[in-house]
Amino acid sequence: MTDQSKLVRATAPALHSIDAQTGAIVSDAFAVHGFDDVAAACAAAEAAFDIYRATDRATRAAFLDRIGDEIVTIGDVLIETAVRESGLPRARLEGERGRTVGQLRLFADVVRRGEWLGLRIDPALPDRQPAPRPDLRLRMVPLGPVAVFGASNFPLAFSTAGGDTASALAAGCPVVVKGHPAHPAAGALVAEAIRRAVSASGLPEGVFSHLVGAGNALGAALVQDPRIAAVGFTGSRGGGLALVKLAQARPVPIPVYAEMSSINPVVLLPHALAARGAALGSAFVGSLTMGAGQFCTNPGLVLAMEGEGLDVFVTAAVAALQASVGATMLTGGIHAAYGQGVQALAAHEDVETLAQGQAGEGVAAGRAALFATDAAAFLRDEALGHEVFGASSLLVRCRDADELRDVLAKVEGQLTATLQMDAEDEALAATLIPILERKAGRILANGWPTGVEVTHAMVHGGPYPATSDARTTSVGSLAIDRFLRPVSYQNLASALLPAELRDGTANDVPVLIDGKRN
Amino acid sequence: MTDQSKLVRATAPALHSIDAQTGAIVSDAFAVHGFDDVAAACAAAEAAFDIYRATDRATRAAFLDRIGDEIVTIGDVLIETAVRESGLPRARLEGERGRTVGQLRLFADVVRRGEWLGLRIDPALPDRQPAPRPDLRLRMVPLGPVAVFGASNFPLAFSTAGGDTASALAAGCPVVVKGHPAHPAAGALVAEAIRRAVSASGLPEGVFSHLVGAGNALGAALVQDPRIAAVGFTGSRGGGLALVKLAQARPVPIPVYAEMSSINPVVLLPHALAARGAALGSAFVGSLTMGAGQFCTNPGLVLAMEGEGLDVFVTAAVAALQASVGATMLTGGIHAAYGQGVQALAAHEDVETLAQGQAGEGVAAGRAALFATDAAAFLRDEALGHEVFGASSLLVRCRDADELRDVLAKVEGQLTATLQMDAEDEALAATLIPILERKAGRILANGWPTGVEVTHAMVHGGPYPATSDARTTSVGSLAIDRFLRPVSYQNLASALLPAELRDGTANDVPVLIDGKRN
Repeated sequence: MTDQSKLVRATAPALHSIDAQTGAIVSDAFAVHGFDDVAAACAAAEAAFDIYRATDRATRAAFLDRIGDEIVTIGDVLIETAVRESGLPRARLEGERGRTVGQLRLFADVVRRGEWLGLRIDPALPDRQPAPRPDLRLRMVPLGPVAVFGASNFPLAFSTAGGDTASALAAGCPVVVKGHPAHPAAGALVAEAIRRAVSASGLPEGVFSHLVGAGNALGAALVQDPRIAAVGFTGSRGGGLALVKLAQARPVPIPVYAEMSSINPVVLLPHALAARGAALGSAFVGSLTMGAGQFCTNPGLVLAMEGEGLDVFVTAAVAALQASVGATMLTGGIHAAYGQGVQALAAHEDVETLAQGQAGEGVAAGRAALFATDAAAFLRDEALGHEVFGASSLLVRCRDADELRDVLAKVEGQLTATLQMDAEDEALAATLIPILERKAGRILANGWPTGVEVTHAMVHGGPYPATSDARTTSVGSLAIDRFLRPVSYQNLASALLPAELRDGTANDVPVLIDGKRN
Repeated sequence: MTDQSKLVRATAPALHSIDAQTGAIVSDAFAVHGFDDVAAACAAAEAAFDIYRATDRATRAAFLDRIGDEIVTIGDVLIETAVRESGLPRARLEGERGRTVGQLRLFADVVRRGEWLGLRIDPALPDRQPAPRPDLRLRMVPLGPVAVFGASNFPLAFSTAGGDTASALAAGCPVVVKGHPAHPAAGALVAEAIRRAVSASGLPEGVFSHLVGAGNALGAALVQDPRIAAVGFTGSRGGGLALVKLAQARPVPIPVYAEMSSINPVVLLPHALAARGAALGSAFVGSLTMGAGQFCTNPGLVLAMEGEGLDVFVTAAVAALQASVGATMLTGGIHAAYGQGVQALAAHEDVETLAQGQAGEGVAAGRAALFATDAAAFLRDEALGHEVFGASSLLVRCRDADELRDVLAKVEGQLTATLQMDAEDEALAATLIPILERKAGRILANGWPTGVEVTHAMVHGGPYPATSDARTTSVGSLAIDRFLRPVSYQNLASALLPAELRDGTANDVPVLIDGKRN
C-alpha cells in the first residue's frame, strides 16, 4: 500500500450501510479502497482486455446471461438489503431486479445478433481505373476498460450491474465500478455475483472490479488512470461535470457519458385539458411522487395555457398532492438538497406554492410540492429551470401558444418531453415537435415520463445538460455503441482478419456490402 | 458593422491569394469577414435548420448531387486557381476534384438509402404484464448548424465542399465554413458553386455560408456561437486542440471532430524485407514524397528488425530519396515548420540522417529527409514520435519482435498502421494486430497509407491525437454519423411522427423491429 493510498483511506469518510428510513448504521465500516487499489483494478482490466475482447459472441453472451443468473441466485437478501439502504419499496426493488436481469439478457441477445459490429465490406476492384481499389473491411472494436459510476436512485438497474456495466461488457470492455456509497451492501452482493460469473465463465478476473469508498478522490483517480478508456456516470450535474473535466484534462482525453439532470417538461394541450383535466391532474401527481420523485425522468416542469381546463387540472393535482404522503428519500444528503430546492422555490417572489404533500415518516421523508409561475417569470430567471431532485414540480402558466413555444425554446436539454393531447390538439402539437426534438432524447404522448422501457428504440439521453453527450443513450440496446469505435482493415490476409470479416465464413451477422445490406 | 467586427478586420492580417511556388501576391486583398458576419451566418444557419432538416431524402440527395455538378461547371479555372494557391500538381488537383464530386455523390446515395436514419421500432405490447409496453420508434436527427474548418493540404476534398461539409449537409445540418486562408480564391469559387446549388434547389440561403479571414479570432467566434452544434476540422494538433478547448468551455459544450496529427507507422516484417527489400525501399519513398509529403497519412515512421533485409531496404530508400526533388509546399508557414522539424531531427543526438532529397525550385520547396534511430532512443524521447508535416520519415531499428511491439505500444494514436508482410510473416503479424487495433483507425497490409478511398468501409480517424474523437471517421459514408443523435418517439399519433416512422408508409429504409432487421 502506497502512502497516498493510506492517505486517501485515512481522510475518506468511513463507509457504512445506512438504513435510509431511520438513518441508523446497520453494518460495520466497509473496507475502503485506496489509490493502489484503483491502479490494481485498472491494471487488471487492461491485462484482461485483449483476452476479453477476443471472446466469441456466444461466450460473451453466455457470460452476460450468467451475471443475470447469479443476481437472481443472491435471492431475497439482495432485495432486503436494497430496500433498507435505499428506502425504496420492496415491490419497486423486485421490479428493478427484474429490469436489471432483463437488461443483461437483452445485451446478451444484442451480442449474439452482432448488429453492433457494424460490419462493412467494400470488395476490391482490381480493374478500376486509374488505380485498383483495395479490399476494405470495417468492424467496431471496444474502446478499452470502462469506469462506471453507479447511481443512488437505482441501486440495481443503474448501479453495479446496471445499464452502463451491461453495455460496456457487451461491447467487449472490462469494467471497473466505483460503487455508490449510498448502497454499499447491495453493491457488494451484486459485485460478488458478477465475480462469480466471471470465474464460472473462465474469464480473467480483471474483466470486472468493484471499488468502494466515500468522497471523490477515488473516483477522480479512476477517471485519471491512463488505462481507462471511457466513463459511464449517472448522477448530479455537478458530479458529472467534474468527471467530464477530469477526463478532458488527461494527457489522452476520453469520452464521458454522464447522465446528469433533467426536469422533463410535460405540456398539457388545451383539448386534452378540456376533456380530462381532472384525470390528468391526479395521474400527474402519481408520476411526480412515485419513488419519492427520485427519477431522472421525474416531471419537474408542467406547461399549459391558462383557461378553465388548466384550473380543473390544478384543482385535481392540488388535491392529489395534498393527500400524498412523503416517502423516504435515498440519503440524508439528497433529502437535505431537496428541502433546500423546495424552500428556494417557495421563497421565490414570482413563484406561488400551490400545494404541499403530507410529511411522511422517518428521518428523510420527502414532502411533495407543487409550485406555479408565469411564462414571463420563467423566461426571466433561468434558475427556475433547474432540477430539484425529488417530488417537486413547477407549473408555468402561458398566455398563448407563442408563449408556450418561447418557454420550450428556453428550457435546457432534457431526457424527455411529454405532450398530453387529444386529436384536436394535433395541429398545435405539430408546431411543438420540432422544438422538442432539439431539446429532448424522447418525446412521448399521453403517458408520463417516469417509465423507461429497456428496448431497442429507447433513448434515455438528450442534449446538454441532460447528458454530457447527446449522441447516445444510457438505456436500451443502442447504449452499446458508446463503447465502440470503428477500425478498417485494408487488404489484410483472411487469416489475420477478425472472424466476422473473413472470407467464406458463414456469416449470420448483417454486413453492409458496398453500402447495401446483405 | 459592430465595433468589434471593425476591430477584428483591422487587426486581422490582410488576406491575399498567394502563388505557392513564387510567394507572389496574385490577387487584391480579399474582403475579410468580421464578428458580425459570423453572427449573421450562424443566425441564417439556425433559421434554415428546421426547413433544411425537414427536406425529404430525394430533395436533399439531389441538392448534394447539384453541388457536385456546380463544382464541375466551374471548369478549369478552379484547377488553375488551386494549382497556383497550393503548389500541388495539376493531375493531383484534377483527381482531387473528382474525389470531391464523387464524395458528394456518395453522400447523395447514402441519403437516399436512409440507413443513416437508424430506424428502430418496438411495437406496443398492450397485453404485457404487469404493465403494457408503449409503442417506441427511434430515428437519428441532425445536431444543428455545423462549423467546418477547411484543410490546407486538400484545397478541394477536405475544404469548402469537402468531406465534413458533405457529410454534415447529408445529415441535415446547415454548414458555416471558415475557409482556409491558404486558398482563398479556390475557396471562393467552390463557395459560390455551393450557393448556386442552394439557390437552384430552392433551399434557404442559410444552409451554407462561407467566412473568409486570416488569424484565429474569426474561427474562435464561430465555434463559440451558441447556434453552432458541432465542429469539423482538419489541420494541426495545436489548431485542433484550441478548437476543442473553446467548444468544451461553452455554456453548452459541443462535439469537435478534429483530425490532427499522425505519423502512420509502417512495419516492415522480416520475410517481406528478405523477399523484396529493395522494391519496398523505393515504393516507400514514392509514398513519402508524394504531394511533398503533405498528407495526414504520410508514412513518417518506419519500424523494422535489424538484418540484411533492412539493409537492402535502406540502401534502396536512400537512393530513391536522394534522387527525389523537393516539391513546393502549401504555404510559407508550412515550409518553415517543416524545415524546423527536419532540423531538430538532424540535430538530435540519437538520430542519424540517412539521406536528404534534392532541394527543388521555388521559395517553398520541401526537401525530403530520412532519419534513423534505435528502439531504445525512440522509447526514451517521445518527441521522436511527433509529426513533422512533410516528406520526412524516421526509421526505428528494433533488435527483435519484443522491441518492435514495445515501440508500437508506445506510439500515440494514429490514422493508419501498415504491415509490409509475406505469408511467412503471418504469425508475427498476428501478434501485432491487437496492438495496432488500439492505435489506429485503419490497418493495411502491403500497401501505403497515402491512398484513402472514399467508401463505406473506410475509417479515416483514430485514437487521440490522430483525432479528437476516435469513435468516428472523417472520410467515407460513416462520417455522416458524426452529425446525428437519436430521438425516440413514444406513443405518438402517426400524423405527428416523422414520415419514415409512420404506420402504413411503404418504407424502403431498413428498420430494426424489436431488434431484428426487417
